[in-house]
Amino acid sequence: MSVGRGKGERNRYNGIPLAVVKRLPSYQRLLSDLVAKEVERISSRELAAKMKINASQVRQDLSLFGSFGQQGYGYRVSYLLDEINKILGINTKTKMVLVGAGQLGRAITNYSNFAKRGFIIEALFDRDPEVIGKTVNGLSVKDLKELGTYLKAAPAEIGIICTPASAAQEITDQLVASGIKGIWNFAPTVVKVPETVCIEHVHLGESLMILSFQLKQKKAGLGMTK
Amino acid sequence: MSVGRGKGERNRYNGIPLAVVKRLPSYQRLLSDLVAKEVERISSRELAAKMKINASQVRQDLSLFGSFGQQGYGYRVSYLLDEINKILGINTKTKMVLVGAGQLGRAITNYSNFAKRGFIIEALFDRDPEVIGKTVNGLSVKDLKELGTYLKAAPAEIGIICTPASAAQEITDQLVASGIKGIWNFAPTVVKVPETVCIEHVHLGESLMILSFQLKQKKAGLGMTK
Repeated sequence: MSVGRGKGERNRYNGIPLAVVKRLPSYQRLLSDLVAKEVERISSRELAAKMKINASQVRQDLSLFGSFGQQGYGYRVSYLLDEINKILGINTKTKMVLVGAGQLGRAITNYSNFAKRGFIIEALFDRDPEVIGKTVNGLSVKDLKELGTYLKAAPAEIGIICTPASAAQEITDQLVASGIKGIWNFAPTVVKVPETVCIEHVHLGESLMILSFQLKQKKAGLGMTK
Repeated sequence: MSVGRGKGERNRYNGIPLAVVKRLPSYQRLLSDLVAKEVERISSRELAAKMKINASQVRQDLSLFGSFGQQGYGYRVSYLLDEINKILGINTKTKMVLVGAGQLGRAITNYSNFAKRGFIIEALFDRDPEVIGKTVNGLSVKDLKELGTYLKAAPAEIGIICTPASAAQEITDQLVASGIKGIWNFAPTVVKVPETVCIEHVHLGESLMILSFQLKQKKAGLGMTK
Protein backbone atom coordinates (compact mmCIF):
# COMPACT_ATOMS: atom_id res chain seq x y z
CA MET A 1 0.00 0.00 0.00
CA SER A 2 2.89 2.29 0.74
CA VAL A 3 4.72 2.51 -2.59
CA GLY A 4 2.57 2.58 -5.71
CA ARG A 5 4.65 4.08 -8.49
CA GLY A 6 2.00 3.43 -11.13
CA LYS A 7 2.67 2.91 -14.79
CA GLY A 8 4.62 6.08 -15.43
CA GLU A 9 6.75 6.77 -18.47
CA ARG A 10 9.96 6.23 -16.57
CA ASN A 11 11.89 2.98 -16.70
CA ARG A 12 9.98 0.55 -14.52
CA TYR A 13 12.90 -1.86 -14.10
CA ASN A 14 15.21 0.45 -12.21
CA GLY A 15 15.40 1.05 -8.49
CA ILE A 16 13.66 -2.21 -7.58
CA PRO A 17 14.90 -3.48 -4.21
CA LEU A 18 17.02 -6.62 -4.48
CA ALA A 19 14.73 -8.43 -2.02
CA VAL A 20 11.83 -7.92 -4.43
CA VAL A 21 13.90 -9.07 -7.41
CA LYS A 22 14.75 -12.22 -5.49
CA ARG A 23 11.05 -12.91 -4.86
CA LEU A 24 10.06 -12.58 -8.53
CA PRO A 25 11.08 -16.13 -9.49
CA SER A 26 8.94 -17.46 -6.62
CA TYR A 27 5.95 -15.43 -7.84
CA GLN A 28 6.64 -16.80 -11.31
CA ARG A 29 6.71 -20.39 -10.09
CA LEU A 30 3.57 -20.03 -7.95
CA LEU A 31 1.62 -18.32 -10.72
CA SER A 32 2.70 -20.94 -13.27
CA ASP A 33 1.36 -23.63 -10.93
CA LEU A 34 -1.94 -21.72 -10.61
CA VAL A 35 -2.28 -21.32 -14.38
CA ALA A 36 -1.64 -25.07 -14.79
CA LYS A 37 -4.46 -25.68 -12.27
CA GLU A 38 -6.70 -23.28 -14.24
CA VAL A 39 -7.07 -20.89 -11.30
CA GLU A 40 -8.29 -17.58 -12.73
CA ARG A 41 -7.77 -15.12 -9.94
CA ILE A 42 -6.06 -14.84 -6.59
CA SER A 43 -6.19 -12.33 -3.75
CA SER A 44 -3.06 -10.70 -2.36
CA ARG A 45 -3.86 -12.53 0.87
CA GLU A 46 -3.83 -15.98 -0.77
CA LEU A 47 -0.72 -15.14 -2.77
CA ALA A 48 0.93 -13.88 0.42
CA ALA A 49 0.19 -17.15 2.23
CA LYS A 50 1.87 -19.12 -0.57
CA MET A 51 4.83 -16.71 -0.63
CA LYS A 52 5.13 -16.81 3.17
CA ILE A 53 5.12 -13.00 3.35
CA ASN A 54 2.26 -10.68 4.31
CA ALA A 55 -0.43 -9.38 1.96
CA SER A 56 0.65 -5.76 2.09
CA GLN A 57 4.16 -6.84 1.07
CA VAL A 58 2.67 -8.67 -1.95
CA ARG A 59 0.69 -5.57 -2.95
CA GLN A 60 3.78 -3.40 -2.49
CA ASP A 61 5.98 -5.78 -4.51
CA LEU A 62 3.57 -5.97 -7.43
CA SER A 63 2.80 -2.25 -7.41
CA LEU A 64 6.45 -1.66 -8.27
CA PHE A 65 5.72 -3.17 -11.67
CA GLY A 66 2.41 -1.37 -12.21
CA SER A 67 -0.88 -2.03 -10.42
CA PHE A 68 -2.31 -5.35 -11.54
CA GLY A 69 -4.73 -5.99 -8.68
CA GLN A 70 -8.32 -4.84 -8.41
CA GLN A 71 -10.01 -4.04 -5.10
CA GLY A 72 -12.31 -6.91 -4.05
CA TYR A 73 -11.35 -9.01 -7.05
CA GLY A 74 -7.67 -9.73 -6.63
CA TYR A 75 -5.19 -10.44 -9.36
CA ARG A 76 -5.92 -12.07 -12.69
CA VAL A 77 -3.48 -14.99 -12.55
CA SER A 78 -2.67 -15.37 -16.24
CA TYR A 79 -2.29 -11.61 -16.79
CA LEU A 80 -0.03 -11.29 -13.73
CA LEU A 81 2.05 -14.27 -14.88
CA ASP A 82 2.44 -12.73 -18.34
CA GLU A 83 3.60 -9.45 -16.82
CA ILE A 84 6.08 -11.17 -14.50
CA ASN A 85 7.34 -13.28 -17.38
CA LYS A 86 7.96 -10.10 -19.37
CA ILE A 87 9.80 -8.54 -16.43
CA LEU A 88 11.97 -11.64 -16.04
CA GLY A 89 12.56 -12.05 -19.76
CA ILE A 90 10.84 -15.44 -19.77
CA ASN A 91 9.15 -16.85 -22.88
CA THR A 92 11.21 -14.70 -25.18
CA LYS A 93 13.97 -16.90 -26.54
CA THR A 94 17.29 -16.34 -24.76
CA LYS A 95 20.26 -18.00 -26.43
CA MET A 96 22.93 -19.52 -24.24
CA VAL A 97 26.22 -21.38 -24.69
CA LEU A 98 27.77 -23.66 -22.10
CA VAL A 99 31.47 -24.22 -21.48
CA GLY A 100 32.60 -27.33 -19.65
CA ALA A 101 30.62 -30.37 -20.76
CA GLY A 102 31.44 -32.53 -17.75
CA GLN A 103 28.75 -34.16 -15.65
CA LEU A 104 27.33 -30.94 -14.22
CA GLY A 105 27.42 -29.25 -17.63
CA ARG A 106 25.60 -32.20 -19.16
CA ALA A 107 23.02 -32.25 -16.36
CA ILE A 108 22.29 -28.57 -16.95
CA THR A 109 22.08 -29.12 -20.71
CA ASN A 110 19.57 -31.91 -20.24
CA TYR A 111 17.49 -30.04 -17.66
CA SER A 112 14.35 -29.30 -19.62
CA ASN A 113 12.87 -26.71 -17.25
CA PHE A 114 15.10 -23.95 -18.61
CA ALA A 115 14.21 -24.63 -22.24
CA LYS A 116 10.51 -24.63 -21.33
CA ARG A 117 10.92 -21.02 -20.23
CA GLY A 118 12.74 -20.00 -23.40
CA PHE A 119 16.32 -20.34 -22.17
CA ILE A 120 17.95 -22.40 -24.89
CA ILE A 121 21.46 -23.85 -24.77
CA GLU A 122 22.57 -23.66 -28.39
CA ALA A 123 26.11 -24.96 -28.15
CA LEU A 124 28.47 -26.76 -25.76
CA PHE A 125 32.23 -26.35 -25.61
CA ASP A 126 35.01 -28.25 -23.91
CA ARG A 127 38.77 -28.52 -24.26
CA ASP A 128 39.03 -32.21 -23.38
CA PRO A 129 39.56 -34.29 -26.58
CA GLU A 130 37.68 -37.14 -24.88
CA VAL A 131 34.60 -34.96 -24.53
CA ILE A 132 34.71 -33.01 -27.82
CA GLY A 133 32.38 -34.59 -30.37
CA LYS A 134 30.18 -36.35 -27.80
CA THR A 135 26.45 -35.70 -28.10
CA VAL A 136 24.50 -34.15 -25.22
CA ASN A 137 20.79 -33.49 -25.63
CA GLY A 138 21.18 -33.48 -29.41
CA LEU A 139 24.19 -31.15 -29.40
CA SER A 140 27.67 -32.22 -30.40
CA VAL A 141 30.29 -30.84 -27.97
CA LYS A 142 32.55 -28.39 -29.82
CA ASP A 143 36.23 -27.67 -29.34
CA LEU A 144 36.74 -24.67 -27.04
CA LYS A 145 39.05 -23.20 -29.70
CA GLU A 146 35.97 -22.58 -31.86
CA LEU A 147 34.18 -20.49 -29.21
CA GLY A 148 35.05 -17.06 -30.63
CA THR A 149 34.28 -18.00 -34.24
CA TYR A 150 31.03 -19.66 -33.21
CA LEU A 151 29.77 -16.66 -31.22
CA LYS A 152 30.68 -14.30 -34.07
CA ALA A 153 28.41 -16.27 -36.40
CA ALA A 154 25.74 -17.09 -33.81
CA PRO A 155 25.68 -14.52 -31.00
CA ALA A 156 24.28 -15.60 -27.65
CA GLU A 157 23.29 -13.63 -24.56
CA ILE A 158 24.28 -15.92 -21.70
CA GLY A 159 27.42 -17.99 -21.16
CA ILE A 160 27.20 -20.85 -18.65
CA ILE A 161 30.46 -21.79 -16.94
CA CYS A 162 30.74 -25.39 -15.76
CA THR A 163 34.52 -25.63 -15.84
CA PRO A 164 36.84 -26.27 -12.89
CA ALA A 165 37.56 -23.15 -10.80
CA SER A 166 41.03 -22.79 -12.32
CA ALA A 167 39.66 -22.19 -15.84
CA ALA A 168 36.65 -20.05 -14.95
CA GLN A 169 38.15 -16.56 -15.22
CA GLU A 170 39.90 -17.27 -18.53
CA ILE A 171 36.67 -18.67 -20.03
CA THR A 172 34.68 -15.73 -18.68
CA ASP A 173 37.09 -13.31 -20.33
CA GLN A 174 36.77 -15.19 -23.63
CA LEU A 175 32.98 -15.16 -23.44
CA VAL A 176 32.88 -11.45 -22.62
CA ALA A 177 35.31 -10.67 -25.47
CA SER A 178 32.94 -12.56 -27.77
CA GLY A 179 29.96 -10.38 -26.83
CA ILE A 180 28.28 -12.44 -24.09
CA LYS A 181 26.25 -10.15 -21.80
CA GLY A 182 25.45 -12.49 -18.92
CA ILE A 183 27.57 -15.09 -17.12
CA TRP A 184 25.94 -17.92 -15.18
CA ASN A 185 28.81 -19.33 -13.18
CA PHE A 186 28.76 -22.80 -11.63
CA ALA A 187 32.53 -23.01 -11.11
CA PRO A 188 33.36 -22.92 -7.40
CA THR A 189 35.11 -19.55 -7.57
CA VAL A 190 34.24 -15.89 -8.04
CA VAL A 191 34.87 -14.53 -11.53
CA LYS A 192 35.10 -10.86 -12.44
CA VAL A 193 33.23 -9.23 -15.30
CA PRO A 194 33.16 -5.67 -16.67
CA GLU A 195 30.30 -3.42 -15.54
CA THR A 196 28.46 -3.93 -18.80
CA VAL A 197 28.12 -7.66 -18.12
CA CYS A 198 25.77 -9.33 -15.62
CA ILE A 199 26.81 -12.24 -13.48
CA GLU A 200 25.06 -14.77 -11.30
CA HIS A 201 27.08 -17.27 -9.26
CA VAL A 202 25.70 -20.66 -8.25
CA HIS A 203 27.89 -21.97 -5.48
CA LEU A 204 26.45 -25.39 -4.69
CA GLY A 205 29.02 -25.90 -1.96
CA GLU A 206 27.99 -22.70 -0.17
CA SER A 207 24.41 -23.84 0.04
CA LEU A 208 25.55 -27.14 1.56
CA MET A 209 27.75 -25.31 4.07
CA ILE A 210 24.82 -23.15 5.13
CA LEU A 211 22.71 -26.27 5.63
CA SER A 212 25.53 -27.80 7.66
CA PHE A 213 25.76 -24.63 9.75
CA GLN A 214 22.03 -24.78 10.48
CA LEU A 215 22.32 -28.43 11.49
CA LYS A 216 25.13 -27.58 13.87
CA GLN A 217 23.09 -24.73 15.33
CA LYS A 218 20.09 -26.98 15.89
CA LYS A 219 22.27 -29.59 17.56
CA ALA A 220 23.84 -26.91 19.77
CA GLY A 221 20.37 -25.69 20.70
CA LEU A 222 19.56 -29.22 21.82
CA GLY A 223 22.70 -29.28 23.93
CA MET A 224 24.40 -31.90 21.76
CA THR A 225 27.52 -29.80 21.19
CA LYS A 226 29.06 -27.08 23.28
CA MET B 1 34.54 -2.92 16.30
CA SER B 2 31.00 -2.42 17.50
CA VAL B 3 29.96 -5.89 18.56
CA GLY B 4 32.60 -8.08 20.22
CA ARG B 5 30.83 -10.76 22.21
CA GLY B 6 34.03 -12.56 23.11
CA LYS B 7 34.35 -16.22 23.95
CA GLY B 8 31.73 -16.44 26.66
CA GLU B 9 30.20 -19.62 28.00
CA ARG B 10 26.96 -19.05 26.12
CA ASN B 11 26.16 -20.70 22.82
CA ARG B 12 28.17 -18.91 20.15
CA TYR B 13 26.05 -20.20 17.26
CA ASN B 14 22.82 -18.48 18.14
CA GLY B 15 21.69 -15.01 17.24
CA ILE B 16 24.06 -14.67 14.30
CA PRO B 17 22.59 -12.43 11.59
CA LEU B 18 21.65 -14.33 8.43
CA ALA B 19 23.80 -11.97 6.32
CA VAL B 20 26.84 -13.07 8.32
CA VAL B 21 25.90 -16.75 8.02
CA LYS B 22 25.69 -16.30 4.26
CA ARG B 23 29.19 -14.81 4.16
CA LEU B 24 30.77 -17.68 6.09
CA PRO B 25 31.14 -19.97 3.05
CA SER B 26 32.93 -17.15 1.19
CA TYR B 27 35.31 -16.68 4.11
CA GLN B 28 35.83 -20.43 4.08
CA ARG B 29 36.64 -20.50 0.36
CA LEU B 30 38.99 -17.48 0.51
CA LEU B 31 40.85 -18.82 3.54
CA SER B 32 41.19 -22.27 1.94
CA ASP B 33 42.77 -20.60 -1.10
CA LEU B 34 45.17 -18.69 1.17
CA VAL B 35 46.16 -21.84 3.07
CA ALA B 36 46.80 -23.57 -0.28
CA LYS B 37 49.07 -20.63 -1.22
CA GLU B 38 50.83 -20.96 2.17
CA VAL B 39 49.82 -17.45 3.25
CA GLU B 40 50.24 -17.32 7.03
CA ARG B 41 48.39 -14.19 8.06
CA ILE B 42 46.01 -11.63 6.65
CA SER B 43 44.77 -8.25 7.83
CA SER B 44 41.07 -7.48 8.11
CA ARG B 45 41.66 -4.88 5.37
CA GLU B 46 43.05 -7.46 2.91
CA LEU B 47 40.34 -9.97 3.79
CA ALA B 48 37.72 -7.23 3.34
CA ALA B 49 39.02 -6.39 -0.15
CA LYS B 50 38.67 -10.05 -1.18
CA MET B 51 35.20 -10.28 0.38
CA LYS B 52 34.13 -6.97 -1.21
CA ILE B 53 32.95 -5.62 2.14
CA ASN B 54 34.68 -3.15 4.45
CA ALA B 55 37.29 -4.01 7.06
CA SER B 56 35.15 -3.09 10.06
CA GLN B 57 32.45 -5.45 8.76
CA VAL B 58 35.03 -8.26 8.59
CA ARG B 59 36.13 -7.56 12.16
CA GLN B 60 32.52 -7.43 13.31
CA ASP B 61 31.62 -10.69 11.50
CA LEU B 62 34.54 -12.59 12.94
CA SER B 63 34.13 -11.15 16.43
CA LEU B 64 30.74 -12.88 16.54
CA PHE B 65 32.60 -16.18 16.65
CA GLY B 66 35.23 -15.06 19.15
CA SER B 67 38.12 -12.64 18.58
CA PHE B 68 40.70 -14.24 16.32
CA GLY B 69 42.51 -11.11 15.14
CA GLN B 70 45.43 -9.38 16.81
CA GLN B 71 46.05 -5.66 16.59
CA GLY B 72 48.84 -4.90 14.07
CA TYR B 73 49.23 -8.56 13.15
CA GLY B 74 45.93 -9.54 11.58
CA TYR B 75 44.44 -13.01 11.50
CA ARG B 76 46.32 -16.29 11.47
CA VAL B 77 44.95 -17.83 8.28
CA SER B 78 45.09 -21.51 9.20
CA TYR B 79 43.69 -20.93 12.70
CA LEU B 80 40.86 -18.80 11.34
CA LEU B 81 40.08 -21.42 8.67
CA ASP B 82 39.98 -24.16 11.32
CA GLU B 83 37.57 -22.11 13.43
CA ILE B 84 35.30 -21.37 10.47
CA ASN B 85 35.41 -25.02 9.44
CA LYS B 86 34.29 -25.98 12.94
CA ILE B 87 31.49 -23.43 12.83
CA LEU B 88 30.33 -24.73 9.44
CA GLY B 89 30.69 -28.38 10.37
CA ILE B 90 33.33 -28.93 7.70
CA ASN B 91 35.99 -31.65 7.98
CA THR B 92 33.89 -33.66 10.37
CA LYS B 93 32.26 -36.43 8.37
CA THR B 94 28.64 -35.66 7.49
CA LYS B 95 26.73 -38.60 6.05
CA MET B 96 24.25 -37.95 3.27
CA VAL B 97 21.86 -39.95 1.11
CA LEU B 98 20.58 -38.82 -2.28
CA VAL B 99 17.18 -39.59 -3.80
CA GLY B 100 16.71 -39.26 -7.55
CA ALA B 101 19.70 -40.62 -9.43
CA GLY B 102 18.98 -38.83 -12.70
CA GLN B 103 21.53 -36.66 -14.43
CA LEU B 104 21.57 -33.92 -11.80
CA GLY B 105 21.68 -36.47 -8.99
CA ARG B 106 24.58 -38.23 -10.67
CA ALA B 107 26.41 -34.94 -11.26
CA ILE B 108 26.08 -34.07 -7.58
CA THR B 109 27.24 -37.55 -6.55
CA ASN B 110 30.34 -37.23 -8.72
CA TYR B 111 31.15 -33.70 -7.60
CA SER B 112 34.25 -34.27 -5.52
CA ASN B 113 34.34 -30.85 -3.82
CA PHE B 114 31.71 -31.89 -1.27
CA ALA B 115 33.51 -35.08 -0.30
CA LYS B 116 36.75 -33.14 0.11
CA ARG B 117 35.04 -31.11 2.85
CA GLY B 118 33.71 -34.19 4.62
CA PHE B 119 30.21 -34.31 3.10
CA ILE B 120 29.90 -37.92 1.98
CA ILE B 121 27.06 -39.33 -0.10
CA GLU B 122 26.73 -42.86 1.25
CA ALA B 123 23.78 -44.15 -0.77
CA LEU B 124 21.64 -43.29 -3.79
CA PHE B 125 17.98 -44.18 -4.28
CA ASP B 126 15.63 -44.11 -7.23
CA ARG B 127 12.29 -45.69 -8.11
CA ASP B 128 13.00 -46.13 -11.82
CA PRO B 129 13.81 -49.81 -12.57
CA GLU B 130 16.07 -48.61 -15.41
CA VAL B 131 18.19 -46.67 -12.93
CA ILE B 132 18.19 -49.05 -9.92
CA GLY B 133 21.37 -51.13 -9.87
CA LYS B 134 23.42 -48.70 -11.96
CA THR B 135 26.74 -47.61 -10.49
CA VAL B 136 27.47 -43.94 -9.81
CA ASN B 137 30.81 -42.96 -8.29
CA GLY B 138 31.21 -46.47 -6.90
CA LEU B 139 27.70 -46.64 -5.43
CA SER B 140 24.99 -48.95 -6.74
CA VAL B 141 21.64 -47.13 -6.99
CA LYS B 142 19.20 -48.71 -4.53
CA ASP B 143 15.45 -49.18 -4.84
CA LEU B 144 13.59 -46.32 -3.15
CA LYS B 145 11.55 -48.94 -1.29
CA GLU B 146 14.68 -49.74 0.73
CA LEU B 147 15.14 -46.15 1.97
CA GLY B 148 13.57 -46.61 5.42
CA THR B 149 15.33 -49.91 6.13
CA TYR B 150 18.65 -48.51 4.92
CA LEU B 151 18.48 -45.40 7.11
CA LYS B 152 17.52 -47.48 10.15
CA ALA B 153 20.71 -49.50 9.73
CA ALA B 154 22.91 -46.62 8.56
CA PRO B 155 21.58 -43.28 9.81
CA ALA B 156 22.51 -40.17 7.83
CA GLU B 157 22.19 -36.48 8.60
CA ILE B 158 21.37 -34.94 5.24
CA GLY B 159 18.97 -36.07 2.52
CA ILE B 160 19.54 -34.66 -0.98
CA ILE B 161 16.44 -34.42 -3.17
CA CYS B 162 17.03 -34.58 -6.92
CA THR B 163 13.61 -35.90 -7.89
CA PRO B 164 11.02 -34.15 -10.08
CA ALA B 165 8.97 -31.51 -8.26
CA SER B 166 5.95 -33.84 -8.06
CA ALA B 167 7.78 -36.38 -5.87
CA ALA B 168 9.74 -33.97 -3.68
CA GLN B 169 7.33 -33.57 -0.74
CA GLU B 170 6.63 -37.30 -0.48
CA ILE B 171 10.35 -38.11 -0.47
CA THR B 172 11.04 -35.35 2.05
CA ASP B 173 8.39 -36.82 4.37
CA GLN B 174 9.94 -40.27 4.03
CA LEU B 175 13.43 -38.93 4.77
CA VAL B 176 12.21 -36.99 7.80
CA ALA B 177 10.30 -40.03 9.10
CA SER B 178 13.57 -41.97 8.79
CA GLY B 179 15.47 -39.53 11.00
CA ILE B 180 17.08 -37.20 8.45
CA LYS B 181 17.80 -33.82 10.06
CA GLY B 182 18.65 -31.73 6.98
CA ILE B 183 17.11 -31.57 3.52
CA TRP B 184 19.09 -30.21 0.57
CA ASN B 185 16.44 -29.76 -2.08
CA PHE B 186 17.21 -29.45 -5.79
CA ALA B 187 13.67 -30.20 -6.96
CA PRO B 188 12.09 -27.11 -8.51
CA THR B 189 9.47 -26.72 -5.77
CA VAL B 190 9.25 -25.73 -2.13
CA VAL B 191 8.99 -28.62 0.32
CA LYS B 192 7.85 -28.34 3.92
CA VAL B 193 9.68 -29.81 6.88
CA PRO B 194 8.93 -29.89 10.62
CA GLU B 195 10.66 -27.29 12.80
CA THR B 196 13.21 -29.82 13.99
CA VAL B 197 14.52 -30.29 10.46
CA CYS B 198 16.70 -27.84 8.48
CA ILE B 199 16.18 -27.17 4.82
CA GLU B 200 18.13 -25.47 2.06
CA HIS B 201 16.58 -25.07 -1.39
CA VAL B 202 18.69 -24.81 -4.54
CA HIS B 203 16.48 -23.41 -7.28
CA LEU B 204 18.70 -23.36 -10.34
CA GLY B 205 15.91 -21.85 -12.40
CA GLU B 206 15.51 -18.93 -10.01
CA SER B 207 19.13 -18.00 -10.35
CA LEU B 208 18.77 -18.03 -14.15
CA MET B 209 15.65 -15.85 -13.96
CA ILE B 210 17.48 -13.32 -11.79
CA LEU B 211 20.30 -13.22 -14.35
CA SER B 212 17.73 -12.74 -17.10
CA PHE B 213 16.10 -9.93 -15.12
CA GLN B 214 19.47 -8.19 -14.75
CA LEU B 215 20.10 -8.53 -18.50
CA LYS B 216 16.73 -6.95 -19.26
CA GLN B 217 17.44 -4.12 -16.83
CA LYS B 218 20.83 -3.43 -18.42
CA LYS B 219 19.28 -3.40 -21.88
CA ALA B 220 16.56 -1.02 -20.67
CA GLY B 221 19.24 1.22 -19.19
CA LEU B 222 20.96 1.33 -22.55
CA GLY B 223 17.69 2.27 -24.20
CA MET B 224 17.43 -1.02 -26.07
CA THR B 225 13.94 -1.81 -24.76
CA LYS B 226 11.20 0.46 -23.52
